[in-house]
Amino acid sequence: MKKGLLLVISGPAGSGKGTVNAHLLKREDFEYSVSATTRAPRPGEVDGVNYHYITKEDFLCRIERGEMLEYTEYCGNYYGTPLKEAEDVLHSGKNLILEIEVEGARNVKAKYPDAVLVMLLPPSYAVQEQRLRGRGTESEQKILERLARAKEEIYCANDYDYVVYNHDGKDAEAAEQILSIISAEHCAVSRNKRIAEDYLGI
Amino acid sequence: MKKGLLLVISGPAGSGKGTVNAHLLKREDFEYSVSATTRAPRPGEVDGVNYHYITKEDFLCRIERGEMLEYTEYCGNYYGTPLKEAEDVLHSGKNLILEIEVEGARNVKAKYPDAVLVMLLPPSYAVQEQRLRGRGTESEQKILERLARAKEEIYCANDYDYVVYNHDGKDAEAAEQILSIISAEHCAVSRNKRIAEDYLGI
Repeated sequence: MKKGLLLVISGPAGSGKGTVNAHLLKREDFEYSVSATTRAPRPGEVDGVNYHYITKEDFLCRIERGEMLEYTEYCGNYYGTPLKEAEDVLHSGKNLILEIEVEGARNVKAKYPDAVLVMLLPPSYAVQEQRLRGRGTESEQKILERLARAKEEIYCANDYDYVVYNHDGKDAEAAEQILSIISAEHCAVSRNKRIAEDYLGI
Repeated sequence: MKKGLLLVISGPAGSGKGTVNAHLLKREDFEYSVSATTRAPRPGEVDGVNYHYITKEDFLCRIERGEMLEYTEYCGNYYGTPLKEAEDVLHSGKNLILEIEVEGARNVKAKYPDAVLVMLLPPSYAVQEQRLRGRGTESEQKILERLARAKEEIYCANDYDYVVYNHDGKDAEAAEQILSIISAEHCAVSRNKRIAEDYLGI
């Protein structure tokens, strides 16, 4: 059984990464991992489905033991991906999608260099601005904050392996592009150490 | 206009690289380059279509001036790819296919590091042997020579970027796999130096 690939997808607000990931997750060869969190379950959330709900003590202990692939603290709660959860998916032969921010992506690559890092972008900053304003759901203040952040984070694209552009109404094509990347990476010589031996059956 | 990619395809006898390349060349975004040779045209061959027929003096002079992307000597004649011919194709935005042997491939990568090197293989040495014997067109001696060579050259796969397997009757799939590789390489951050600048329009 060939191991799956760890696919890290990041993208600024307006990149449409939720929609693109949904396309990928429809496929049988893609899986997501259930994150762990220290925050309390909200009404209707199920342990092991929405999150693994664990105590702060347990979470910090796991960080200490190197058992978290990545994690972040937000509003006093911890969120992260248990390494074991991720490895179970990869060993089943499925590709695992992690939708995380640029800092988390950098940490994953450091901890798991085999990860494939994809930055999903709107076609341009101008289109990103249009999309954020077009939503009509956020305050001007919030939009300006998001745009300012995008302007900074675009330079982080250079830390990624691939950049994929999500053009208006073309999220299925962006998903196809990511599938091509995964398909190519599975053929990469750098990932296949026993080409000659396997070929010759030795 | 985005530059095309230089795609180098190598494969042992029985890998089916001729058929796979024919699939790729049916596409509008793929092109081959006309080689130069010092051998005389055979009846029916056309200058600039089958080959560029040039004198040995001219050929050696071009090598000297670094104007050949790769070349080889065979039975006293030279064969090679003029650099200008290749660059014209790439600058037109088309991907250029070079079907060459492992030594030539290594030389191309040294001269043109942006090249994408793909090794096409039968699924295994056992299948390769079946295919060569199945043809029924070559002497036992010739078959043994080819197999011995394949056993040596399989270790060169490690110098390539990608390995693609051509399963029986699946050459269209092998071509699709190569298309995925080209599609992924076009998105590689290492090939796109101005991601942030282009995004921000600066």
